[in-house]
Amino acid sequence: MTESSSSRRYVILAEGRFEDRNAKTTHGLIAYGRKDAEVAAVIDSALSGRRVLDVMPSLRRNAPIVGTLREALRYSPNSILVGLAPAGGRLPESWIGILRNAAEAGLEIVSGLHQRLASMFPGANVWDVREPPENIPLFSGECFDVQPKVALTVGTNTAIGKMTTTLEIGLAAQKRGIAVEFVPTGQTGIVIAGWGICIDAVVSDFAAGASEQLVLEAAKRDPELIMVEGQGSLGHPAYSGVTTALLHGSCPDCLVLCADASLEKVFTRIPVPDLKEIIDLYEGVAALVKPAHVVAVSVNTEGLDEGTARAFVEGVAATTGLPTVDPVRSSADLILDAVLRAPKTAEVGT
Amino acid sequence: MTESSSSRRYVILAEGRFEDRNAKTTHGLIAYGRKDAEVAAVIDSALSGRRVLDVMPSLRRNAPIVGTLREALRYSPNSILVGLAPAGGRLPESWIGILRNAAEAGLEIVSGLHQRLASMFPGANVWDVREPPENIPLFSGECFDVQPKVALTVGTNTAIGKMTTTLEIGLAAQKRGIAVEFVPTGQTGIVIAGWGICIDAVVSDFAAGASEQLVLEAAKRDPELIMVEGQGSLGHPAYSGVTTALLHGSCPDCLVLCADASLEKVFTRIPVPDLKEIIDLYEGVAALVKPAHVVAVSVNTEGLDEGTARAFVEGVAATTGLPTVDPVRSSADLILDAVLRAPKTAEVGT
Repeated sequence: MTESSSSRRYVILAEGRFEDRNAKTTHGLIAYGRKDAEVAAVIDSALSGRRVLDVMPSLRRNAPIVGTLREALRYSPNSILVGLAPAGGRLPESWIGILRNAAEAGLEIVSGLHQRLASMFPGANVWDVREPPENIPLFSGECFDVQPKVALTVGTNTAIGKMTTTLEIGLAAQKRGIAVEFVPTGQTGIVIAGWGICIDAVVSDFAAGASEQLVLEAAKRDPELIMVEGQGSLGHPAYSGVTTALLHGSCPDCLVLCADASLEKVFTRIPVPDLKEIIDLYEGVAALVKPAHVVAVSVNTEGLDEGTARAFVEGVAATTGLPTVDPVRSSADLILDAVLRAPKTAEVGT
Repeated sequence: MTESSSSRRYVILAEGRFEDRNAKTTHGLIAYGRKDAEVAAVIDSALSGRRVLDVMPSLRRNAPIVGTLREALRYSPNSILVGLAPAGGRLPESWIGILRNAAEAGLEIVSGLHQRLASMFPGANVWDVREPPENIPLFSGECFDVQPKVALTVGTNTAIGKMTTTLEIGLAAQKRGIAVEFVPTGQTGIVIAGWGICIDAVVSDFAAGASEQLVLEAAKRDPELIMVEGQGSLGHPAYSGVTTALLHGSCPDCLVLCADASLEKVFTRIPVPDLKEIIDLYEGVAALVKPAHVVAVSVNTEGLDEGTARAFVEGVAATTGLPTVDPVRSSADLILDAVLRAPKTAEVGT
């Protein structure tokens, strides 16, 4: 289990790209980071002197934006997060310099990049978030018997808000005083929660086992509800294996389908699947092992005006016959209600 | 791509367990190994002096069984294969000694064990069959456009004869003069064919990409038909991710379902799924990306008497409405006919 050692106070390195839509880890950490994951400052010299909520009001937590590491250090961070994948994939020399200086100032380097940084900064304290733990076991079935209810988010496509939906359901539960654990399965979720495993970085044979271990770990904290962050989509050819490993490995009792009003292609020319068809397939594949119904739909209507968004949500609700909402635009309460109503299920054959 | 450097003449190390049902790599190599993968001798002191076909007549190729490496060396091998996973998983001292002596005699060590042997025998020529190549790309979609027809075996369960079925279809095609390529996706298939990638040993993110690369590699040899060895089962919680990565990554035009008359549990208490249900799910999940129908069923009736086997095959044919046969008991011709009749398909959205 990748787990945080202690509470963090981050400076986030997002030089030149704080507003970039791909800065998911930066935005996710600011908006959803736990209390023990504070944001001291953001580095983006293009926005130096402004504050986070001035630039992106949806991010909920405020922090100063500064132009240099030197300025950021005034806010007493103990960690520096590489806040997004650099353009072109390779860490530019200027970022390497900033990270080296940060390490020399005693900061831990936290990175969700594919490229592992531990070997680049020998002697520094580096948390490569995507690096899976060693000795992940095969799926054992122990997870069939966890006490809390387990809900998993699944999607019609990748990158449409499964993590956000999972976190919003968690926040809605917390507001009601329900003990809920968020299970992070990708780099941004792991940075937000301070623990977890990147399922897509695990050797295939052990991906279901890793999913199971995460749920078992969350169950140890004795919550009422475990919300598992889904990955990929059953209909995305590059990632459907990861999706299926999570669908069986995390042993969910119910599913929340995440859909996207943008209806971008899933892959090259492949369109977003029909909603009823993909719901049937998620339920059908789950039920080969342990029944889990799709109990609600979370729709990402980002960028639409209020009226168009409402019409889209109503259309999805009519098509699916399921409680449907954009949890960011309104709240996840409707989805949470459906999750709470869903029964615990047992694996087939019991 | 893991690929053989040259032709091999094997001594197979199967000490004490040549007849063991789990000696799949031993039996597979003997029965199906290519012409450039000869079997010089088998080491099993319990059967020393006998010959392969005296002990297991179904294996098609003969070879002497000897008690020691020294005797085996008389048959001029150039490779030694660890023929099965040792009981308890750890290589016993006696096997390590034999392998070290073989390496000192100039033999290459070939192993499909999870444990990698290259580090145990420094200086020796070791082919760890399960070790995936570096720099496997993400799934690209290039495989959508391969010219040959691609067929993939899928299963109602694990370990029920997907590799054997795939190889038998290949042999039936060869007999008819059809240029066919076998795509190996697991350790035994790789030893048999001398190339391939263990999909379950690949990091999840790249499992579909690895499947695609294998088909692209096979297509370079310009066959009429590419037969892809399936892995796991969509209904097996530990391996369904690997199954799905192959189902989308190899871009098949049609599927052959492998079923098993033994009807052993899929996992703990989980029974074998209903045939029509699993066929619908394989087709449904495939069709999210690229349609591929199940065109025939291959039934493993090992251990049944002739009448019971025939009745079982007929029952499966009646249930599914598909050409059904045990390709080992009779031949794979019926399945091959169905595969040849199946149309090439294009990805969704084209």
